[in-house]
Amino acid sequence: MGAAEAVLGELGGLAVETQPQKVKRRSRDFYWYSPILKRQLDQVTAEAVVTPKDEAEVIRVLAACHRHRVPLTPRGGGTGNYGQAMPLQGGIVLDLSEMTAIKSIGHGRVRVEAGRKLAELDAETIRNSRQELRLHPSTHKTGTIGGYVAGGSSGVGSITWGLLRDRGNILTTRVVTMEAEPRVLELRGADIQKVNHAYGTNGIITELEVPLAPAYRWAELLLAFPDLMTAARFGDALAREDAILKKLVSVIAAPVAHDWLFPERVAQDEAVVVVMVADVALDALHDLLRSWPGRIAHQGFLDALGGAEMPLFEYTWNHTTLHALKHDRTVTYLQTLFPPPHHLGKVAEMAAAFGDEVPMHLEFVRYAGQIACFGLQLVRYTSDERLLAIIDHHERNGCPIFNPHAYTLEGGGMKKVDQVQLAFKREADPLGLLNPGKMVGWDHPAYDESQDRRFLYSGG
Amino acid sequence: MGAAEAVLGELGGLAVETQPQKVKRRSRDFYWYSPILKRQLDQVTAEAVVTPKDEAEVIRVLAACHRHRVPLTPRGGGTGNYGQAMPLQGGIVLDLSEMTAIKSIGHGRVRVEAGRKLAELDAETIRNSRQELRLHPSTHKTGTIGGYVAGGSSGVGSITWGLLRDRGNILTTRVVTMEAEPRVLELRGADIQKVNHAYGTNGIITELEVPLAPAYRWAELLLAFPDLMTAARFGDALAREDAILKKLVSVIAAPVAHDWLFPERVAQDEAVVVVMVADVALDALHDLLRSWPGRIAHQGFLDALGGAEMPLFEYTWNHTTLHALKHDRTVTYLQTLFPPPHHLGKVAEMAAAFGDEVPMHLEFVRYAGQIACFGLQLVRYTSDERLLAIIDHHERNGCPIFNPHAYTLEGGGMKKVDQVQLAFKREADPLGLLNPGKMVGWDHPAYDESQDRRFLYSGG
Repeated sequence: MGAAEAVLGELGGLAVETQPQKVKRRSRDFYWYSPILKRQLDQVTAEAVVTPKDEAEVIRVLAACHRHRVPLTPRGGGTGNYGQAMPLQGGIVLDLSEMTAIKSIGHGRVRVEAGRKLAELDAETIRNSRQELRLHPSTHKTGTIGGYVAGGSSGVGSITWGLLRDRGNILTTRVVTMEAEPRVLELRGADIQKVNHAYGTNGIITELEVPLAPAYRWAELLLAFPDLMTAARFGDALAREDAILKKLVSVIAAPVAHDWLFPERVAQDEAVVVVMVADVALDALHDLLRSWPGRIAHQGFLDALGGAEMPLFEYTWNHTTLHALKHDRTVTYLQTLFPPPHHLGKVAEMAAAFGDEVPMHLEFVRYAGQIACFGLQLVRYTSDERLLAIIDHHERNGCPIFNPHAYTLEGGGMKKVDQVQLAFKREADPLGLLNPGKMVGWDHPAYDESQDRRFLYSGG
Repeated sequence: MGAAEAVLGELGGLAVETQPQKVKRRSRDFYWYSPILKRQLDQVTAEAVVTPKDEAEVIRVLAACHRHRVPLTPRGGGTGNYGQAMPLQGGIVLDLSEMTAIKSIGHGRVRVEAGRKLAELDAETIRNSRQELRLHPSTHKTGTIGGYVAGGSSGVGSITWGLLRDRGNILTTRVVTMEAEPRVLELRGADIQKVNHAYGTNGIITELEVPLAPAYRWAELLLAFPDLMTAARFGDALAREDAILKKLVSVIAAPVAHDWLFPERVAQDEAVVVVMVADVALDALHDLLRSWPGRIAHQGFLDALGGAEMPLFEYTWNHTTLHALKHDRTVTYLQTLFPPPHHLGKVAEMAAAFGDEVPMHLEFVRYAGQIACFGLQLVRYTSDERLLAIIDHHERNGCPIFNPHAYTLEGGGMKKVDQVQLAFKREADPLGLLNPGKMVGWDHPAYDESQDRRFLYSGG
């Protein structure tokens, strides 16, 4: 009998899946966005998926895995893009998507179990008190709040509230450790950074408290511009309008906007800016637009969408790549920081260097009190060598890449795996059973991260 | 019979005050903050004060004044600091403080008559739907919403929402013109800038629609630091924390913080940062503070203040000067922009240049998408010549002054009186009867404003 089977034998009463096809399907995410990860991870699968319905069951699973030395990899909605929740060393996948209870809704905050889907969380807090999450990824419908914190970094709302890493965007994380007798820790303040964007390598997040923003009536607009840099400059100008309450400012180059996203709404030579603003800001937005050569290709309200209609934000952030892949399976993408205050200059430089080989896609955000933009550029992929050369060119020209073609924390490069991080891993997962293979610094203590790299997260 | 008397003769049924002492008291504001304005304006008074109770009465007053060519100067709470509402050419003061009706409260917006006091407006929108104004001056209790828009520029809340000039911070202004048959105009979008910060020189604002923000439970903190520049750098760092929802970040130098503001809470050599953050952000603020040599001299919540206790924000913005003046009648102040991104360097430069002669007082704000700070420095006044030399030194060193020792729009320098502005004045007040003497460009068409000056407002 294998070790995983021994674990399952102790989990009587828990929901367990062992049918290989079903287990394999739930052992993966959107890693196939990357041709490199597709090759590397295509065969990855767990031996079983366990779906706890509450924290007590999570503790049982962790204790059993610890006893039998079985790797455990937590999973939310499976909407990651670089294998965050893929069980490299097999073992068991812990599917948290049935832990969905909302524990409390306060004025400006909600406490909720980790497996609650983001859209379903928003629906409930809106119904309760017209409040909603500050931030969510483009996978609003299927992503979970715990998965977003463990594997995400920013998204819709970041133009107002910054990134998930920013102090105050997560209030509490409740974490279960991988030990003989698992402990439950409540992390607050700086301690939250230990498990924020750690892929579940150092504890299982079972519950979170996050701040809520007021839920306004959001207008969504598709604005068409004659060229990329005009669109980018408009996006930057809009981002700087402090009194226009925004949730989204995305810039997408021609011909992608027409060819793969909005064929009926924009022409092939038009670049677009996708915008979400509160209804009270519409006059101000129109006023701003008057002095720019942009036209309104579409304007509507999120709450007026028909059941089958997709909100515009589902064409932005990581979903831009998803829509592109539906048309062309060879396309992939980058994740780039265009550092402020010279981000527009760098965008122009990179656009000139690569043209239509790397169609530009920008997401404007607040970045440490400044306006900046991330690039989620598409790449017309030809070979690994060329892809790596493109990445290298960006890095050497002052545009750090958070590599979405690597499945380790260090390879992705958003999070600095420092001594605080490693110390917490020793405390919360001394045997290294949680999501093994994702933290290089754990497996190879001599691994030295370059000191001059720019990280989004550090250990706290 | 004088012209003003003729006007009053036509205003049967309206509230009119003609007793000279009472009229004089209601013909002034806090102009005596400035020793220069005190000398220039001390004798200014109207002949009568008329207090309309609705827009129909405003129209009657304007028509009568137009008929008899009598100057009319509108007034809210009289909390301006540079004679904005003082009737330089006598005539009639139009006191709008009895026009206080709230017309409607929506999700994210309120429509209200111009004379409503800010604190009383907030109290009602909080009671109605836990919403409040985005911005208010330190004169929250006594200032009116119309007066704030006509004569103010920024305040508590500007660290999140920018300035009153920013597109979206005012949704609609309803304005009555000074004509034989006064018209009522509803200004929206860019047109709002015509009457925003125009001192009532080009129409009487009777009603406004402004956006509302959610009313959180605000924590107020008094943080003490060993020196000015540490306090200023901490203020800047806090201002850049995008996920900490803030309403106030004020920096006040030693020994002012102890001598004139918080004698029991801080030492004489301590500089302070006065902070307001939402309750959900307190953990994050404490987390940030851990890496700074600052101590919490006081922490409380606004909603827990006793009846006699003053909120900390009443020691900030223009109220810092007010408290200083209670201790030393010779003190006056400046209004300075320390332009981003080198604002901290400029603060250090000016602090070194003037030391305790110009005790530093900074208010951090969002300024066109960047973090910046305004200086409302105190000045230990000795002579007009020295005051003007201090102003000149700031201007020549890249720190524009919005001169609070001048009573004209142009002298104050926040607003550019451009052709759009003058054209609207010709339309709304063709005889130049509204608050005469405040718009130099009207009285002296040849007056040419320097092109390289930095303005907060232009005509739209």
